[in-house]
Amino acid sequence: MTATMRAAVMRDRKLVVADVPVPEPGPGEVLVRTLACGICGSDLHALKFADQFVATARRAGNPRVMDLGRDVIMGHEFCAEIVEHGPDTVRAFKTGTRVCSRPVLMPATGPQSIGYSNDNPGGYAQYMRLSEALLLEVPNGLPTDQAALTELMAVGVHAVAKARLEPDDAPLLIGCGPVGLALIAALRLAGARPIVADPGQTTPWQSWRETAAWTDATRAPQQPAWLPGPPLRPAVVFECVGVPGVLDQVMAAAPRGSRIVVVGVCMEADTIYPMLGITKELNLQFVLGYTQDEFAATLHHIAEGAIPTVPLITGHVGIGGVAQAFEELASPERHAKILVHPER
Amino acid sequence: MTATMRAAVMRDRKLVVADVPVPEPGPGEVLVRTLACGICGSDLHALKFADQFVATARRAGNPRVMDLGRDVIMGHEFCAEIVEHGPDTVRAFKTGTRVCSRPVLMPATGPQSIGYSNDNPGGYAQYMRLSEALLLEVPNGLPTDQAALTELMAVGVHAVAKARLEPDDAPLLIGCGPVGLALIAALRLAGARPIVADPGQTTPWQSWRETAAWTDATRAPQQPAWLPGPPLRPAVVFECVGVPGVLDQVMAAAPRGSRIVVVGVCMEADTIYPMLGITKELNLQFVLGYTQDEFAATLHHIAEGAIPTVPLITGHVGIGGVAQAFEELASPERHAKILVHPER
Repeated sequence: MTATMRAAVMRDRKLVVADVPVPEPGPGEVLVRTLACGICGSDLHALKFADQFVATARRAGNPRVMDLGRDVIMGHEFCAEIVEHGPDTVRAFKTGTRVCSRPVLMPATGPQSIGYSNDNPGGYAQYMRLSEALLLEVPNGLPTDQAALTELMAVGVHAVAKARLEPDDAPLLIGCGPVGLALIAALRLAGARPIVADPGQTTPWQSWRETAAWTDATRAPQQPAWLPGPPLRPAVVFECVGVPGVLDQVMAAAPRGSRIVVVGVCMEADTIYPMLGITKELNLQFVLGYTQDEFAATLHHIAEGAIPTVPLITGHVGIGGVAQAFEELASPERHAKILVHPER
Repeated sequence: MTATMRAAVMRDRKLVVADVPVPEPGPGEVLVRTLACGICGSDLHALKFADQFVATARRAGNPRVMDLGRDVIMGHEFCAEIVEHGPDTVRAFKTGTRVCSRPVLMPATGPQSIGYSNDNPGGYAQYMRLSEALLLEVPNGLPTDQAALTELMAVGVHAVAKARLEPDDAPLLIGCGPVGLALIAALRLAGARPIVADPGQTTPWQSWRETAAWTDATRAPQQPAWLPGPPLRPAVVFECVGVPGVLDQVMAAAPRGSRIVVVGVCMEADTIYPMLGITKELNLQFVLGYTQDEFAATLHHIAEGAIPTVPLITGHVGIGGVAQAFEELASPERHAKILVHPER
């Protein structure tokens, strides 16, 4: 008889609580107990725009796209505890060790997603399989909840690296949701000054602008204000919103020669006017994820206090509270990051 | 009494032949007689999508956008002959000298367009004003018609420079109209090998593929063929079509980490799926024009035979033939570049 676990499952394009089989670790894998898992805006989008998500992933050539006719257990921002070592493991960390990992499995057949997958449950479940080779031990004394923010903060670290900032670049952020705040933290770490942020209408900025962690960022007085008429020096704009229409606004407003780093994940079709880009010779750099080194460095920076995380955590739920938390996060004025604790 | 000249005028969103005042050269300017002026695809677009052209230029922050209620004389790919020196000129070139120039005026108040302007007639007229500081003498023995292709070929040289090619980058072109062929010529000059070109359905490739000038370029067998499944090394794709939908196709087909250089000028709204760019961390570099150095180098390369131009010239018309030539160029199978000779 297979053991079961509780999970918040995407089934028939809805989130439901269900008992599902505990996964079995394969070669080179460990079984872990999920201690905390952040709810990411991308999961909200993947649920709301599930069919577009799948269609676009197919067009992009992704060889393993989730089947919406089968269960999917999302959750890719986690901290977990090793429960059991599968075959062919070196057991570098013993049972009970708290670990973080990129949400990827590395079987011999090639990388697979954890979370956006029918086969590899994510952190909205009691247990997950992880690849031993990707495990990072959570440093002594770092609370589990903060370690669970490694994935989010690594997105900021990676986007800043891809932006290839020059010493006198003054970065501008559009959108101050969790991804925007991760960007501000990573920009501060990189020494960028000043940082100007445009929180827009639908972000938790109002709650966070007074916190010590992000006070270096100056609030743009209003959207057009970062844009006095030309000639302006080129800007580096981080688009951290990810809803249709924002990219067009940024392209219209950006000074000539600007670089736009697209971090917000827009899963819908979007309209742009290429002539805006051409007239101003804009550069658009789309970014995703992080490298293993960036992920490991981020966990280290969080442990050292160089990347703040505590003010981001605004709520905690058990498996039974995931669907409700998705609804609350759709109105981002009240929440930044809600953590799921499957054992609650 | 003001002298008049014949011109093909954009008036009420149509091309008409009209007598208009001969322009008067201002400080630092010369009056030139237009010898030859290429008809550019952008002019066809600017006529067809005149209102969108103006609206987008306004949104881009262009401080001097043409007023469609007034006459506009287009034409920005020209070779001309100095007729008269205005005030405050140093007269480096004497009357009768054949010259090329970037289609820009440089008054003290800031640069102004020649061609997409109510005040600065382009080469579809007998006379133009040019800034003396930008003049380049046509080298002895270089035919006027070839010199007139400097502007087009400089677009290719600039786009290749902006692409920052690495030694083992294998560039891919989408679209083999005049801009695509200019790109191939510039890529050959830069030593890029191999060059793969996808002519699409509506380009003059069929006419040019056998010409010696472009035989280095390999025709892609069919659109999906440049795209065997992942993992592929990143590509450098030059988008030289400029009609809605092409950018989306390129983003869907490009391998992870590819750079897409957008050279084709799409003046309409276009739909993209940002998630395609995000999933594959694509980079979009929009490009326009060229520097003064690139323009001068291109004229030199044409004179030396390093950039071929002759096979591109497929037609010649006088002022009275401009409107008809615009119609013929809308079906690009038959023509690449038609030159206007206002004195004919």
